Amino acid sequence: MNLMDFFRRNKEPTATTAKDRLQIVLAHERADRNAPDFLPALQKELLAVIKKYVPIDDDKVAVKLERESGCSMLEVNVELPAPQPGTPRQPATTAVG
Amino acid sequence: MNLMDFFRRNKEPTATTAKDRLQIVLAHERADRNAPDFLPALQKELLAVIKKYVPIDDDKVAVKLERESGCSMLEVNVELPAPQPGTPRQPATTAVG
Repeated sequence: MNLMDFFRRNKEPTATTAKDRLQIVLAHERADRNAPDFLPALQKELLAVIKKYVPIDDDKVAVKLERESGCSMLEVNVELPAPQPGTPRQPATTAVG
Repeated sequence: MNLMDFFRRNKEPTATTAKDRLQIVLAHERADRNAPDFLPALQKELLAVIKKYVPIDDDKVAVKLERESGCSMLEVNVELPAPQPGTPRQPATTAVG
């Protein structure tokens, strides 16, 4: 089963109100177990980049970070505000960094 | 099965030489089928952010974008250069345009 199939099967059952949702997963496999893990730092910048495209409510962001020998996995789930019908979503103009 | 289990099960079988690998998946579910899809634009910026942490060879980047009704999924697989033993990986200093 590839990752796309995984997402298809794991989509929320048809919730009463369909939501806009963004799920991000990063898996970093390191040959050298002691190589630095940059996922925690990357996570903040990732959200900053996404905020340029869509407004994100920080308390609608769920983050999971797991580490195993030589592999770290970061999962970020964001519930996005449903777009007002008829208003095309423009990239947000908030400056980053 | 949650996503972390998926990555564990899908790790490459012990290849002859363990590689540093980064896998990124974004799934964007849109309640409004006609809402704009920002994943293609987001993909370029994501790689630019990652390049601040680790050098990326553009021909070692595989991108898959799939769209279904109301859901788009972007999968980026990056084979990273194995760090030289003993050299801690510092954030790359390349300025992002």
